[in-house]
Amino acid sequence: MTTFQGPAIILVKPQLSENIGTAARAMLNCGLTDLRLVAPRETWLQDRAFAAASGADRVLLGARVFDTTAEAIADLRRVWATTARNRFMVKPVDTPRTAAGAMRAAAAEGLAAGVLFGPERTGLENDDVALADTVLTVPVNPDYSSLNLAQCVLLVAYEWFQAGVTEGPKPMTKGAEPPAPKEKLVGFFEHLERELDECGFLRVVEKRPTMVRNIRNMFQRAHLTGQEIQTLHGIVHELVTYRRRKAEGEG
Amino acid sequence: MTTFQGPAIILVKPQLSENIGTAARAMLNCGLTDLRLVAPRETWLQDRAFAAASGADRVLLGARVFDTTAEAIADLRRVWATTARNRFMVKPVDTPRTAAGAMRAAAAEGLAAGVLFGPERTGLENDDVALADTVLTVPVNPDYSSLNLAQCVLLVAYEWFQAGVTEGPKPMTKGAEPPAPKEKLVGFFEHLERELDECGFLRVVEKRPTMVRNIRNMFQRAHLTGQEIQTLHGIVHELVTYRRRKAEGEG
Repeated sequence: MTTFQGPAIILVKPQLSENIGTAARAMLNCGLTDLRLVAPRETWLQDRAFAAASGADRVLLGARVFDTTAEAIADLRRVWATTARNRFMVKPVDTPRTAAGAMRAAAAEGLAAGVLFGPERTGLENDDVALADTVLTVPVNPDYSSLNLAQCVLLVAYEWFQAGVTEGPKPMTKGAEPPAPKEKLVGFFEHLERELDECGFLRVVEKRPTMVRNIRNMFQRAHLTGQEIQTLHGIVHELVTYRRRKAEGEG
Repeated sequence: MTTFQGPAIILVKPQLSENIGTAARAMLNCGLTDLRLVAPRETWLQDRAFAAASGADRVLLGARVFDTTAEAIADLRRVWATTARNRFMVKPVDTPRTAAGAMRAAAAEGLAAGVLFGPERTGLENDDVALADTVLTVPVNPDYSSLNLAQCVLLVAYEWFQAGVTEGPKPMTKGAEPPAPKEKLVGFFEHLERELDECGFLRVVEKRPTMVRNIRNMFQRAHLTGQEIQTLHGIVHELVTYRRRKAEGEG
């Protein structure tokens, strides 16, 4: 198991155990395991929650419960409060992305961090927001900004995980063959152009150089592997052979 | 209504109408409205879907249905196929973030783009992946990478939306008072230090400069507003007055 030093996810007065389960799944997707619940309305250790967690049982089983938000964050040194509405409080505001950078920095210093999420319908109370250092607001469509609780957890956890991904996407799916050396590609070009000359496709002399370049560029863009070039050789060969066979049959 | 030129979201053979509803909600959260369904198992125009859509009805109502993936993407010029598993195909790979940049670039050129999502249990078939230009893989916890369909839609849509957010987070919640001019802060420092001198808190002469700087820095970090500084003046005044009253009462 890969280990992570991610923030605690603190659900304040969550209403539905399904949402706790879906939040647990989103957490584990992004390598977070420290789930804390403040006065949940339903027990989270029930079938509906486990079904929603879809295999992230250990996050649910490890969840800790607290009576108050203050108790749930007692050991944390950096706390964010997620809120969609403007609270008219004087407090710095992060997006999930900017918060993720600060969380990584805190983790690097060994400082425990956490993020507060309010109940589904109402969001966090102002007194809970006042317990946090920083407000966290997800930039979404201003005309339709109501995010599901678990989706909000997912976006925060996702950004935290992305902030730790050091390598970019691989240029090609892994395990796939790399592009062939150019000599193989040029070998195919020559094969193709020989046949195109023979069949008359390139018969207009003044247009030939441009047409050849256009055809070559088209295949260049495909970043062909050696195997694919072999396939193309076969295709050209078969097309030509069929044409010849047909010509011979007709001739 | 803000208008967006975002990618089409194409759900291939989705199994549950709830997931179509939740995907519609995630789309509208991020300003996407072009939902396409390929051979859905259930009708998406039913209560369970609308309940899950939580107000994003117009995305559900506007969804178009196709028999095949090829028909669903016929008008698109740039197509991504989401997949968690390595398909051993020779195809470039994007993350939601790198894809978002390419989608924005395509939109700027007026090129219609779309993203394919497979059925909940199995993901896209290889033949559907082969219809796409690019594979899209979400970097998540390698030990637990199973993303819910709607959550995968959310992450793709979220990154698309973020790529168009030009302004960074505001330093303070909007509507709040800005930090006070420094003369007000210094005025409070002088008030506080005068009282601390008088009560003897700063009596050790060689330590005084350091103590004063530490106290000043502590309040500097709070980026106090004018109103907050007034409150602090009041607090110091009241504490001192109480002490004096008490001293007079005792004296």
